[in-house]
Amino acid sequence: MEQSDGRARVIISGVKPEVDSGLLPAKAVVGEKVEVEVDIFADGHDAITAIVLYRKEGDPEWSEAPMEFITNDRWKGSFLVTELGHYLYTVTAWVDRFKSWRKDFQKRVEAGQEDININLLVGANLIAEASGQASKADSQTLQEWMKTLKSPPASQSEKVKLVLSEEVARVMQKYSDRRFSVTYPRELAVSVDRTRAQFSTWYEMFPRSCANEPGRHGTFKDCEARLPYIAEMGFDILYLPPIHPIGRTLRKGRNNATEAAPDDPGTPRAIGAEEGGHKAIHPQLGTLEDFRHLVEKAKEYGIEIALDIAIQCSPDHPYVKEHPEWFVWRPDGTIQYAENPPKKYQDIYPLNFETEHWRELWEELKSVFLFWIEQGVRIFRVDNPHTKPFRFWEWLIAEVKREYPDTIFLAEAFTRPKVMHQLAKLGFSQSYTYFTWRNTKEELTQYLTEPTQSDVRKFYRPNFWPNTPDILTEYLQSGGRPAFMARLVLAATLTSNYGIYGPAFELCVNTPREHGSEEYLDSEKYEIQHWDINRADSLKDFIARVNQIRRENPSLQSNQNLWFHAVDNEELICYSKHTEDLSNIILVVVNLNPHYTHSGWVHLPLEPWDLDAERPYQVHDLLSGARYLWHGAGNYIELDPKVCPAHIFRVNRRIRREQDFDYYM
Amino acid sequence: MEQSDGRARVIISGVKPEVDSGLLPAKAVVGEKVEVEVDIFADGHDAITAIVLYRKEGDPEWSEAPMEFITNDRWKGSFLVTELGHYLYTVTAWVDRFKSWRKDFQKRVEAGQEDININLLVGANLIAEASGQASKADSQTLQEWMKTLKSPPASQSEKVKLVLSEEVARVMQKYSDRRFSVTYPRELAVSVDRTRAQFSTWYEMFPRSCANEPGRHGTFKDCEARLPYIAEMGFDILYLPPIHPIGRTLRKGRNNATEAAPDDPGTPRAIGAEEGGHKAIHPQLGTLEDFRHLVEKAKEYGIEIALDIAIQCSPDHPYVKEHPEWFVWRPDGTIQYAENPPKKYQDIYPLNFETEHWRELWEELKSVFLFWIEQGVRIFRVDNPHTKPFRFWEWLIAEVKREYPDTIFLAEAFTRPKVMHQLAKLGFSQSYTYFTWRNTKEELTQYLTEPTQSDVRKFYRPNFWPNTPDILTEYLQSGGRPAFMARLVLAATLTSNYGIYGPAFELCVNTPREHGSEEYLDSEKYEIQHWDINRADSLKDFIARVNQIRRENPSLQSNQNLWFHAVDNEELICYSKHTEDLSNIILVVVNLNPHYTHSGWVHLPLEPWDLDAERPYQVHDLLSGARYLWHGAGNYIELDPKVCPAHIFRVNRRIRREQDFDYYM
Repeated sequence: MEQSDGRARVIISGVKPEVDSGLLPAKAVVGEKVEVEVDIFADGHDAITAIVLYRKEGDPEWSEAPMEFITNDRWKGSFLVTELGHYLYTVTAWVDRFKSWRKDFQKRVEAGQEDININLLVGANLIAEASGQASKADSQTLQEWMKTLKSPPASQSEKVKLVLSEEVARVMQKYSDRRFSVTYPRELAVSVDRTRAQFSTWYEMFPRSCANEPGRHGTFKDCEARLPYIAEMGFDILYLPPIHPIGRTLRKGRNNATEAAPDDPGTPRAIGAEEGGHKAIHPQLGTLEDFRHLVEKAKEYGIEIALDIAIQCSPDHPYVKEHPEWFVWRPDGTIQYAENPPKKYQDIYPLNFETEHWRELWEELKSVFLFWIEQGVRIFRVDNPHTKPFRFWEWLIAEVKREYPDTIFLAEAFTRPKVMHQLAKLGFSQSYTYFTWRNTKEELTQYLTEPTQSDVRKFYRPNFWPNTPDILTEYLQSGGRPAFMARLVLAATLTSNYGIYGPAFELCVNTPREHGSEEYLDSEKYEIQHWDINRADSLKDFIARVNQIRRENPSLQSNQNLWFHAVDNEELICYSKHTEDLSNIILVVVNLNPHYTHSGWVHLPLEPWDLDAERPYQVHDLLSGARYLWHGAGNYIELDPKVCPAHIFRVNRRIRREQDFDYYM
Repeated sequence: MEQSDGRARVIISGVKPEVDSGLLPAKAVVGEKVEVEVDIFADGHDAITAIVLYRKEGDPEWSEAPMEFITNDRWKGSFLVTELGHYLYTVTAWVDRFKSWRKDFQKRVEAGQEDININLLVGANLIAEASGQASKADSQTLQEWMKTLKSPPASQSEKVKLVLSEEVARVMQKYSDRRFSVTYPRELAVSVDRTRAQFSTWYEMFPRSCANEPGRHGTFKDCEARLPYIAEMGFDILYLPPIHPIGRTLRKGRNNATEAAPDDPGTPRAIGAEEGGHKAIHPQLGTLEDFRHLVEKAKEYGIEIALDIAIQCSPDHPYVKEHPEWFVWRPDGTIQYAENPPKKYQDIYPLNFETEHWRELWEELKSVFLFWIEQGVRIFRVDNPHTKPFRFWEWLIAEVKREYPDTIFLAEAFTRPKVMHQLAKLGFSQSYTYFTWRNTKEELTQYLTEPTQSDVRKFYRPNFWPNTPDILTEYLQSGGRPAFMARLVLAATLTSNYGIYGPAFELCVNTPREHGSEEYLDSEKYEIQHWDINRADSLKDFIARVNQIRRENPSLQSNQNLWFHAVDNEELICYSKHTEDLSNIILVVVNLNPHYTHSGWVHLPLEPWDLDAERPYQVHDLLSGARYLWHGAGNYIELDPKVCPAHIFRVNRRIRREQDFDYYM
C-alpha cells in the first residue's frame, strides 16, 4: 500500500465503531458479527472496492471481509469474532479500474452507443493485465477471454455478453489492482467477551440470611441448598455481597446505627478484621473449601458465582498494620477515614491511590482478583469503581483478562453519565444504570434511546436492577406487588442483562426505613434476615416465566433493535425487539400504573416486520399463554395490574389459513 | 507530565473541535477566539484544574489559556489566533490538591463542623509545600500565611477567613502541583485564514461582456470601467470565469450548439489554444500587463480579483503536445475526452491524475496557481475540484498557503455531501452549497441546520449563490423580480459568504434556454452579451443596501448563532443572528412566495435576547428605514413581494423612556 503515491485516490473516514477517536476498544461477544461502517469515496465517478481488514491481536496476518455500498458514500462490512480477547480492524479501499470500466461500459450498452469497439478493447486490455497477476488456472481463463474479445470471429453482441458476465466480474475482482489502495490510518480494536457479558440474569443474595431456620447465621452450605430455588427462577449468576471478615472497630448497628449491639453482625462492606482481609472468608460463612464447593455446585445448576469487590478497609483490616503507606495520614497521626464533607464514614478507610507506593498497591489489588479467580470465580461486581482511578481499572482489567479473558466485570457506579461511560470504555463488561429511577413512559423512552440506539451501545452494556440492597425505590414502596411485576418485566425485556436483589424482590418487600428514604427497613446490610421463600404470594413463578421467555427468545438476548411504539395512553408503554432476520419478534406492553386498569390502542410497524396489512396475524402472550388474532397496525390493549401489569407477546408473522389446509391444495 | 504514573487520575476526551478524529485541521480566521470544549473528570470528587495548550505551528513553546467548567463534566476554554497559518492545541488537566482541600474545607465550615483544626493544618501544609516552588516574593507571602495558620495568636475564625480568601486561592493556583497532570494524547490543528475567508461578497462577471457598446469583445480595460459600479453595489470580490485562450477544435456554438459559427467566441472553459494555456490570457481580453493593472485598480475600490481555475484542456491546449503523458490514450491512438457515459464532451480533455508522471503534473498545476499569485491574485474559485484527487488538493493548498497563507480557495463542487465536506476538511476555504436549490421554509431550515449549528461549522464555510452562469433556478424563472430580491436577502443574511452572477442577477434575467432547463437562454458561456446595467428596474440599489447592511452589522459577518423562529405561515421564514454580547441582533423575515402578499405572527426569543417582556422594544427595518415599536414575543408581519419581500430588522434592546429624560432624574 503506497499511500504516499499521488495516485491513491480514495478517502476513508467516519469509521464506526470507533470509541474515543480510536483510543479505546469497542465491545463484542464471541460469535458476534462485528459490523463496520465507514465513509468511502474518491474523486470523479469511478467504482471503488473496499474491504475490512481484521485480525486477532497477536496474529501476524490480516484477514479480509468484503464491504458493500449502502447509501450516501457509506459502506458496511462485518467480520465474525470467534475467540476471546482483542481483535484489530481497519478498512482498505481502492479505485477499481475494471469495475469502473464495466460500470461505464454497461451504461454505453444500455444507451445503445454503437462505437463501443474501442471501449471493448480497453476492457480486453484490463483483462490481459490481470492475467499477469493471476493463478495459473485463472490466467488461462483470462487469456481466453481476452482473445475472444480481441478476435474477429465473435460477434460484438457475444463479446458484450461475455465481458459483462458475472463470471468475468468475479475473476477480475480477485485480481483487482490494489497498487493505489488506501488504508484508514488507525487500527481500531474490539474487545471480545463471552456471551454471558451480553446476556445474563443476576440474583443478588446475602449468604448470611440463607439459613433455613431463623436466628442462625447462614453459611455457604445454606447457599448451596438455595441453588435449586435460584435455578428454578432462571437466574444464571448468583452474586454475593462481600464475604470477607467484618471489622469490629466502629461497627455499624442495625439500621445503620452508629453504635452496634454486641451481637450485631456489622456490614459486609466494612472489610477486614484480624481473621483477614480481601482474600479471607468471614468465618461464620464457612471455609475457603466450602466456598469452592459452592462455586462447583452452582455450576451444576448452570449458575456462576459473582463476587463483590469493594476496595476499602475497616480500621481492623490487616493492610492498616502491614501497609500503613497505602493510607492517607492526617497531621494528628490518625488515618484519614472516608468523607464527603460534611458527611463522615469513620468505619471505612479508603486506600490512597496517590501513595508513592501505588505500584505495590495496584499489584496487591490485582492479586485479590486473581485469588478469587483461582477459586473458580470469573464474574466480579465492583463496588463504586468511580472513586478509584480510571487508569487503575484500565490496567487491572487488561491484566486480568490477558490471563483470564473470560472474566466479566460489572461496574456499580451510580454517578455522572460521562464517568459511567468512561468505566465502560476502559473495560468494564457491564454497567449499572439509572433504570432504577426511571419510571414514566417519557423517562424510560428517553433513557433507553442512548444505550440501545446510539454509539454508546458499542461499548456500554447496561445491566438493569429494579432494586438493590441500597435502593428500594418509591415506585416499589407505593406500588406493591403489581409494581414489582411491572419493573421486573421492564428490566428483563428492555435490556439483555438484568438482576434483582432477592429474596426481598420476589417477596415484594417494600417497607422503607423511614418516609422519604430509599433504604430498606431492617436492611440485611446491617443484620441477618430470615426469608420465607415459600410464601404463597411470592413472585418466584412469575420471575421463572419471564426468565424462561428470555432464554427462549433470541431478540431479548441483545440490545439491538429496541423500538418504542405509540400508545394513546401515557400509562401504557409499548416496545418491541426483533432479530435481524425477523424470525423472532417480541412485543411488550406494560401498564406503568400499579393501581388502576389502563387500556389503549397500540400502533405497530407492520411493514418493517414484513406483516401484510390486509391479513390477520397472531400475537401470543408468553406470560398468560393467551393468543390473539390481530389485524392492521392499531390494536386494543387492556391491562389490569392486579391480574398482570404486562403482556410479552411473540408476534407470529404467519398464521394458518384455508390455503394452508391440505385439502385446499 | 508523567502520564505513565498511576497517580495521573484525570480523563480527557471528546475534544471539540476535532475534525476526523484529529487527522485534519479545524478552521478559524485571524482575530477569532478558538473555543475548545472537552470532557474532563477524575475519580472521586476532587477538584480539577484544566488549561488549553496552544502554539503557532513551528513555535517551540506552548502558551496556556484557562478552562472553566460548564456542566456535565464539560469544560471550555479559548485562545486567540492572531496570525495566518496553523495553530496547534491540546488540553492538560490535573487533580488540584489545594482546590480540592479548599472545596471540602468550605463545606465543613458551612456545615458548622467544629473539629476543623486538623483540616486547617492540612491546608497550611499544602501552602508550605507550594512555597518551595514559588517565586521569591510569593514564597515569602506563602510562608507568612502558613505561619499565621499554624501559630496560636490568630483565632480560628481569622485563620478560616485567611485560608479561604481569594488571594490565597489565586497564589496557590499559580503553584498548583502539576506532577500528575494528564495531556490529551493528540495535538489538534486549526488553520487560520484572513477575515475575508469568513466574510466576503462575490460578484461574478464575464469580462468579454463588459464592453460599453454592443458587438465589441470586452477587455480588462472595460472591466476597470465597471469597477465603480461593482463597488457601489458593495461587492469586495470580483470573480472572473477563465481568462485563458479558448480552443478552436470542436468549439461549441451559441446555446451549446455542437457546431460553432465562425464568429462564435467559444466557452472560456475550453482552455488552451496556440496562444497558450492556463498561464496565458485570451488575446481579445488584453495583455498580462492589462490584467495586473485591473488587479491594482480593483484594490483601489476595495475589490479583489478572483480567478477561476478549471483543470481541463481543450484539444488545442499546449499540454497536449508538450505532455502527452498527462492524458489518457485510447487503443486507437486518440486522447480520451471527458465522458460521463453515455454523455460525451469531445471538446474537453481531462488530465490523467493516474499518470506515472503525476508528480510533474502536480508541480505544473501548482505553478499555475503561483503564476497568478505573482500577478497579484489571492483568491481562486476552483472548478469541479471533486473530479480531481483529494490528496492533490490537500497537497496543493498546503503548498500554496505555506508561501502565501492569505490565499483563499473556493470549491465549486455541487456533488454528494460527504465529498463536499471532504474538500472543506482538506483545505478549501469556502464551498458552494445546495442553497441554490433550497426554496421552501422547510428546505432552508433543514439545510441551514448542518453548516451553521453542527460540528460541520468548524471546517465548512458555505458560500451561497442564488444564481450562477450554469444555474438559473426554476424559482427565479417563475418568480421574477420579487424572487430575485428574496433570494438575495436569504443568501446575504443566512451566511456570511455569498455571491451573485451579474449583471444577469441585478437585471433579473430569467429566461431559460428551454422549458425544464436551468441553462440561461443565450448564455454568456457561449456568446458575448451586452448588458444595459443602467436599466431603471435594476436591483443594483437594493443590492447595495443589503451589502451595506452586511458591512454595518457584525452578526451578519459570521455563521454563528443563526436561529430560526416560528411564524404561523409556511410562506414566511423568520430567523435571526446575534453577536455573542447581544450588541448586534439582526432579525430577518422573508416572504418566500414571490406572487402574493403574506402575513403572520412571528414569535421571538425575548429572554435569550435579554429583552423585557413587560417593556416595548424597537425594531428598525434596515431595508425600508421604518421603525416599529414591538411588545412581547408575538408580532405581526405583512410582506407584499411587489414592494419588498423582506424585512431586515435591527433589534434595539433599549428604547428611550421617560426615565431617560434628564428632567426625570
